[in-house]
Amino acid sequence: MMIVMQEGATDEQIAHVVARIEEVGASAHVSVGERVTVIGAIGDREELAGVPLEACPGVDRVVAVLKPYKLVGREFHPDDTVVEVRGKRLGGGHFGMIAGPCSVETEEQVMAAARTVAAAGGTMLRGGAFKPRSSPYAFQGLGVDGLKILAEARDETGLPIVTELMDPRDLDDLLAVADVVQIGARNMQNFQLLSEVGRCDAPVLLKRGLAATIEEWLMAAEYIVKEGNRRVILCERGIRTFETATRNTLDVSAVPVVRLVSHLPVIVDPSHATGRPDLVLPLSLAAVAAGADGVLVETHPNPEHALCDGPQSLAPEAFAEFAERVTELVRWTGKVLS
Amino acid sequence: MMIVMQEGATDEQIAHVVARIEEVGASAHVSVGERVTVIGAIGDREELAGVPLEACPGVDRVVAVLKPYKLVGREFHPDDTVVEVRGKRLGGGHFGMIAGPCSVETEEQVMAAARTVAAAGGTMLRGGAFKPRSSPYAFQGLGVDGLKILAEARDETGLPIVTELMDPRDLDDLLAVADVVQIGARNMQNFQLLSEVGRCDAPVLLKRGLAATIEEWLMAAEYIVKEGNRRVILCERGIRTFETATRNTLDVSAVPVVRLVSHLPVIVDPSHATGRPDLVLPLSLAAVAAGADGVLVETHPNPEHALCDGPQSLAPEAFAEFAERVTELVRWTGKVLS
Amino acid sequence: MMIVMQEGATDEQIAHVVARIEEVGASAHVSVGERVTVIGAIGDREELAGVPLEACPGVDRVVAVLKPYKLVGREFHPDDTVVEVRGKRLGGGHFGMIAGPCSVETEEQVMAAARTVAAAGGTMLRGGAFKPRSSPYAFQGLGVDGLKILAEARDETGLPIVTELMDPRDLDDLLAVADVVQIGARNMQNFQLLSEVGRCDAPVLLKRGLAATIEEWLMAAEYIVKEGNRRVILCERGIRTFETATRNTLDVSAVPVVRLVSHLPVIVDPSHATGRPDLVLPLSLAAVAAGADGVLVETHPNPEHALCDGPQSLAPEAFAEFAERVTELVRWTGKVLS
Amino acid sequence: MMIVMQEGATDEQIAHVVARIEEVGASAHVSVGERVTVIGAIGDREELAGVPLEACPGVDRVVAVLKPYKLVGREFHPDDTVVEVRGKRLGGGHFGMIAGPCSVETEEQVMAAARTVAAAGGTMLRGGAFKPRSSPYAFQGLGVDGLKILAEARDETGLPIVTELMDPRDLDDLLAVADVVQIGARNMQNFQLLSEVGRCDAPVLLKRGLAATIEEWLMAAEYIVKEGNRRVILCERGIRTFETATRNTLDVSAVPVVRLVSHLPVIVDPSHATGRPDLVLPLSLAAVAAGADGVLVETHPNPEHALCDGPQSLAPEAFAEFAERVTELVRWTGKVLS
Repeated sequence: MMIVMQEGATDEQIAHVVARIEEVGASAHVSVGERVTVIGAIGDREELAGVPLEACPGVDRVVAVLKPYKLVGREFHPDDTVVEVRGKRLGGGHFGMIAGPCSVETEEQVMAAARTVAAAGGTMLRGGAFKPRSSPYAFQGLGVDGLKILAEARDETGLPIVTELMDPRDLDDLLAVADVVQIGARNMQNFQLLSEVGRCDAPVLLKRGLAATIEEWLMAAEYIVKEGNRRVILCERGIRTFETATRNTLDVSAVPVVRLVSHLPVIVDPSHATGRPDLVLPLSLAAVAAGADGVLVETHPNPEHALCDGPQSLAPEAFAEFAERVTELVRWTGKVLS
Repeated sequence: MMIVMQEGATDEQIAHVVARIEEVGASAHVSVGERVTVIGAIGDREELAGVPLEACPGVDRVVAVLKPYKLVGREFHPDDTVVEVRGKRLGGGHFGMIAGPCSVETEEQVMAAARTVAAAGGTMLRGGAFKPRSSPYAFQGLGVDGLKILAEARDETGLPIVTELMDPRDLDDLLAVADVVQIGARNMQNFQLLSEVGRCDAPVLLKRGLAATIEEWLMAAEYIVKEGNRRVILCERGIRTFETATRNTLDVSAVPVVRLVSHLPVIVDPSHATGRPDLVLPLSLAAVAAGADGVLVETHPNPEHALCDGPQSLAPEAFAEFAERVTELVRWTGKVLS
Repeated sequence: MMIVMQEGATDEQIAHVVARIEEVGASAHVSVGERVTVIGAIGDREELAGVPLEACPGVDRVVAVLKPYKLVGREFHPDDTVVEVRGKRLGGGHFGMIAGPCSVETEEQVMAAARTVAAAGGTMLRGGAFKPRSSPYAFQGLGVDGLKILAEARDETGLPIVTELMDPRDLDDLLAVADVVQIGARNMQNFQLLSEVGRCDAPVLLKRGLAATIEEWLMAAEYIVKEGNRRVILCERGIRTFETATRNTLDVSAVPVVRLVSHLPVIVDPSHATGRPDLVLPLSLAAVAAGADGVLVETHPNPEHALCDGPQSLAPEAFAEFAERVTELVRWTGKVLS
Repeated sequence: MMIVMQEGATDEQIAHVVARIEEVGASAHVSVGERVTVIGAIGDREELAGVPLEACPGVDRVVAVLKPYKLVGREFHPDDTVVEVRGKRLGGGHFGMIAGPCSVETEEQVMAAARTVAAAGGTMLRGGAFKPRSSPYAFQGLGVDGLKILAEARDETGLPIVTELMDPRDLDDLLAVADVVQIGARNMQNFQLLSEVGRCDAPVLLKRGLAATIEEWLMAAEYIVKEGNRRVILCERGIRTFETATRNTLDVSAVPVVRLVSHLPVIVDPSHATGRPDLVLPLSLAAVAAGADGVLVETHPNPEHALCDGPQSLAPEAFAEFAERVTELVRWTGKVLS
């Protein structure tokens, strides 16, 4: 941690900052510049982070030197984490193609979607039983009944189930069915929920918040891993910007950035990033080329009648073509779909 | 709702959209332009919102005509809502000055802060017992013990307590003490939590999410009011932008925008918006001048030793000066501090 | 300047960075932490800025310690700069109320607007002869003919003229009439234009770019002042964010931030910031309360027939009410309208 | 164009809007909803755009139905535009690999970079003689002398030259050397400059502004094409967002979006988008996979000694590897490097 003093900071103010640093057992190195003095604080990261040095008189700003996360960082665990679930793998050269409807509506709908996904070589089935909706008047999901339908789809196709948890009180019900627990973008900093799924056995698919920096996203993953659950899949799904041609802006750079600093697998959801079915294929290919460990896309047997996010879902034929093209590019990158 | 067809949309595609609209009991008005056809759909707002018309072939985009919220809108309730709690009022000409430490740390600290707030004419005491922190290694709050300290502070000063709820499972404990339940920015779209507090008796202070549009914020309030709790106070606390001189960017325009379209009171939190104590006074004055119904600021008996957000907290003397100047401007606007 | 090395940087890499720093006559202080080494570079700001240290092997990132601007900073010139033009003052306790139509359309229109402004106590007249328009098919301004009309309005009312320069080749024509040269938001980083107006005698009103940080805006002012023209007025006019309720997001925090770090006066343009006439008054009051040295607003004798930005212009009666209320608050702040 | 009236708009207000529409020779279709009336205006796009209908009493908002651009749209010119220069092609299945140093520094530097680019199969050479720099104290480019060096590099390697124009007064000098005129991100809405290059013979490479929507970017291209120059290459180079891990956020979605609505070729500049050499390859691959018609990257014989943007430039060996991998993926997409 480096403390940059204001121009004109007094010797007394500098001495006071040094004293505060030493109080927590850290050591301070004072570097006097022509106009500005900088104090380097060396010691335990968390101890130092707990001292509000910006509030000391004469301090201009505090610059962190160390990254705030530990367990999710590559320094801590240099090899790629491979998440394995019901024989499917994701990460470390294994590419996951996760697809399915936005929300579980009926048994017929889910079974049709699951067959489409399985036939095209998809590796997991997604579908929401609990749905976060901006409007209280919109369809909120089938809840526990939806989970049962997902279980049937898995029984028939063998595809592991990825489904979203919104409320810690639903965790047990959800774990009875879910193979992978999804934490949605809006809950990326619902810290109680993160800690809860950190204590369970299932892998967690953690979506990036709309306004979360990559570092905050990794800190959210750290909440999960800190509780003991190391099987976290990160999912980039678009950030909020001024551009209106797409619903959100896919930050494809997040893929190589995460891969450089973290061992966790990172996938991309182009359906939510853009809200447009005509962009799902080109952006999935972009994600694969950038090094993503998987994609998460929406497909619906009949997008025009979907109760949720129909407009961005791929119809069955479109999904088959999509899967073929993505599979080819995955192969080109040297990864395997498995 | 208006459906803008693509250039070159066929008569069949237009007829299909009309049919889908009529299926839900709405009526369709087709307006054929030189290049583009627009279909107006007239009928029940929610019924129509449930039809994914963008997924129909030939549709370019769907434009909402009606606002998505009802109960929080001025059309529904033209007069300002006044929130009353323990004799204090906020809204409709009543200005609230809510202040206190970011988090509850010790009895001494909270009592000192409460006395500072009361002495300066503050109307409510804020303080967090449950703290959302980006890092799992940071101080997470005292929990239920913190609530007890807040209760003591209220007993002595008479100031109503504003404190944050993060987990629905803590609601009963929190309601035993809280006069106003705060929902933090990160939980603005935690819909289960919104519905829970919508079913309780206490007023709710709802912070705007970092990346939430004003409309989404009002929809979050609609979740609460829909459950029966009409005492919602909206709180602008900065949105996330590219600017780095301040921690977030205070969207002061949100104050007059909300006041035009909603009857709910709207206040401003300049401490979190900027993260800088030197900006708290000018931005509070800006908020008052723009028509805010209150401010929410951080004060700490000893900012330099705060366990949370010390750098942005006002020290006691600074708070007294702050309160005096804000009170004067409130008077200039014709509102009363009460 | 501080150079943060990567974890695992070698001694050789550290020595290489030190050598590069010393090559330009600066000195290097090496601070070895438990995990990361930080090198402080002390010496001439510009010399050091010219060395691409981030490109050296083993470097994680470079953190600037000193501010990149000099001449516009308060350290360089502690007192407020007061811009005086034709007897009107702005800055240092003098508040400027600059108003007029977005673009010069006809003599009648400009004369009517000028009389409205003068009657209400406005201090300067704004009006565009050269207009930047997003569409090549929109009205582009009257050019030199428009300048003549502005000159007539000044002759009658005595109000100094503020008008925009877009092309360096128009500078002489414009200077024949303009009292204050406006540089628009889109040209904030048109560095040739900045240098040109830096060499002229007239004060410059420099609008902040839509995506410019406050620091970049001050650097743009530095381009002007560096050439010798110290009479620069900064104008906040909204930044681009995700919010759509307003055309841009007024960053009112920029006012106190600029006033803390710079001696240049800073004003606010709520008309362009919001694009809505119903927000012009509350946001002007917010600007005054936050410490602005002036406002720049649009008024048109007949907004409904304006060729440019009619929807956000105040009609004459609205302007008179606006001016009265703003004047009252200016007085409350202790500033004088002059 | 659709005019959405406010709830409660009077018949008189509606009639007034209809009258204003008919005044410009357009026709109005009134659609009365349960709560809100919508008026469709059908007629000449530009005529209607010139009427400030939002300023009419009772109007809530105006929604454009038609796209604001014409000449750059696919409706106007369904086939891909292929830009040909000195035998190299870009667009319509032809991929351009444009590379070179950020700025021209010395003859040796440019010749070395040009040889690296040519040897690796690059199709054009980039290099700046006139440099836009945020700081007036930074290296501003060699100007005309730099152009001469670029001409020499072309003479030896045969690579066409891409170089930036910042000031209309430099156009003739620049055209004496440049094969492609670059308009930088900061000048994307410098409308005089756009019109000037619209009247010249050379192709124009138009970078997207940091805060420009895709629609505004296309409107900037429309300025050029309207003057007669149809050879415009669009270049996505990152937009400004809150994320700090990369200098800007590459909006890779812009590639397929532009390709759907426009016939102009679109390329990607990952060097400026990220400011990091370690992201240039993955993001170039992402761009290719998303359908880009080319990439623009920085390479320098010695990044550590570059006078501008050294940290993001690829060294010669890295560039050779980069070019090989990109070429392979271009082939996979079915495009040719030519």
